[in-house]
Amino acid sequence: MKKSILFLCSFSFLGNILCAQNLNIAERLGYSKDAKLLIIHGDDLGVANSQNRASIKALENSPVNSASIMVPCPWFPEIAAYARKNQNVDFGLHLTLNSEWDFYKWGPVSSKDSVPGLVNKDGYFFSSVDSLQMQGTAQEVEIELRNQVKKAYKAGINVTHLDGHMGAAMSRPDYLEAYMRIGKEYGLPVLMDKRVYDIPNDAIQKLLGPNTVLADKILSASPATFDAGMEEFYTNVLTTLEPGLNFLILHLAYDDDEMKAVTVNHPYWGAKWRQADFDFFTSEKCGALIKKQGIVLVTWKELRDKIVRADK
Amino acid sequence: MKKSILFLCSFSFLGNILCAQNLNIAERLGYSKDAKLLIIHGDDLGVANSQNRASIKALENSPVNSASIMVPCPWFPEIAAYARKNQNVDFGLHLTLNSEWDFYKWGPVSSKDSVPGLVNKDGYFFSSVDSLQMQGTAQEVEIELRNQVKKAYKAGINVTHLDGHMGAAMSRPDYLEAYMRIGKEYGLPVLMDKRVYDIPNDAIQKLLGPNTVLADKILSASPATFDAGMEEFYTNVLTTLEPGLNFLILHLAYDDDEMKAVTVNHPYWGAKWRQADFDFFTSEKCGALIKKQGIVLVTWKELRDKIVRADK
Repeated sequence: MKKSILFLCSFSFLGNILCAQNLNIAERLGYSKDAKLLIIHGDDLGVANSQNRASIKALENSPVNSASIMVPCPWFPEIAAYARKNQNVDFGLHLTLNSEWDFYKWGPVSSKDSVPGLVNKDGYFFSSVDSLQMQGTAQEVEIELRNQVKKAYKAGINVTHLDGHMGAAMSRPDYLEAYMRIGKEYGLPVLMDKRVYDIPNDAIQKLLGPNTVLADKILSASPATFDAGMEEFYTNVLTTLEPGLNFLILHLAYDDDEMKAVTVNHPYWGAKWRQADFDFFTSEKCGALIKKQGIVLVTWKELRDKIVRADK
Repeated sequence: MKKSILFLCSFSFLGNILCAQNLNIAERLGYSKDAKLLIIHGDDLGVANSQNRASIKALENSPVNSASIMVPCPWFPEIAAYARKNQNVDFGLHLTLNSEWDFYKWGPVSSKDSVPGLVNKDGYFFSSVDSLQMQGTAQEVEIELRNQVKKAYKAGINVTHLDGHMGAAMSRPDYLEAYMRIGKEYGLPVLMDKRVYDIPNDAIQKLLGPNTVLADKILSASPATFDAGMEEFYTNVLTTLEPGLNFLILHLAYDDDEMKAVTVNHPYWGAKWRQADFDFFTSEKCGALIKKQGIVLVTWKELRDKIVRADK
């Protein structure tokens, strides 16, 4: 099945376009039309040593099959060195415009003078997306996002996709346009779902095309599901997964001294939350459930190479 | 004794000058001429959460009585918040021009465009002092050091002194001049010893005066003493301490996952070294030895207020 579709599609550029129009993402990757595709994705790599260690362990020993890196963070050099040596591990960039923790901070990759609207009075990124939106121009956002992508390539990372920390890079139409434009220029899928079609903005609509990858569903734990229990939530996610491209966002770290200090005063998305993500996805139960449910694990690398760069 | 000397010295500005010329540092602080003064000082606060936690614990529960903070480091906001709330704890600034660890990095407080000679191709401070010396102008060093001092005051730190990470700020005569000038302007003692008198540089000699505080001896562990055993080294330091102003440099942190990762590939000044410093100086043995040897613990705050700012 996989081979024959690829064969049909490889005849010509026209063939690709026709395929793109007629086949859904699952089929274009070589799976059945109604396959339940899932990317199990770790966010926030580079933020802390604890996050790097736990995420690497999960990527090497669990169904977690993709992750994204925060280029401006202090531990970026550690995860960049790992990514450079492990070109087949699926690493994207968690494009970062905020520094949200109370006592541990970072700022832009760009020279601060070139992006004054992205930094607070202490020279760090703003804690909240709201503050960013009030101060940062789309031009500054684009400068900074480009510099993060350039730095990642310079560090030798085989970048498979772009997504955005705290959704900041997608939080205003003009930021979203910059984010999509950079993805397009580098031939990278960018995390978005199909609601992007509803945005009444010509520039954004023009950046969509037959090789744009859009998720059917973006799933993640919430404060309510954390309070109710992570195991129950993730079990439910896996047992009720629907056909289409599903993207599940995790935050993998240990509930250790460093992570407790990084996330102090933040019970949600804190050290216990991250340990719970790690515990469930490295459990035997999780692996067995994925198998039982017939879930097809796919990576951003496949989406990048077989769809976004299909015509290259 | 203490009172009478202060009384004599408080008559007039002239009195202070005469006192400064005739009395040594111990006497100016109110101790006997041959007192064995000691500052037990933790370096590198702000570099990591482990360093902050261990240093705070030692400052609160041991003879360690002074420490200095690295303003450009990611954990600066944590130690700055502690310093703001604990104005009587003796905190200086560990002025920083290098980022020496392999996989965990920071850069200048200043906008990078304003100090291009201080950053490497990845936008971080240079790993080595040698590289800094080859690229960084004294003007750039002065801009960055001033911005670190300004940021510390803005954060509410009661700055008691200046010293320099890896000795970088004192590693070239023109850097040293900037470092001394900033100390003078802010009325802060800066760590130097009496060899500064031997530097054939008019600008540096002009920055010295009767209220300059110079250490008689700056003591610290070395790779050789680490290999031979830290307990033996520090026991020897305390039992052979000579009269005068002695400054003992420690690096207090835990041998935990974070610190191991920060200092990976660096057996010296690494996590075990820092744990050994912490263990000895928080031990009962250390406290008893200081008492037995008649060592007088003094702080930079005393030196700042009673000597450097004597005429203010």
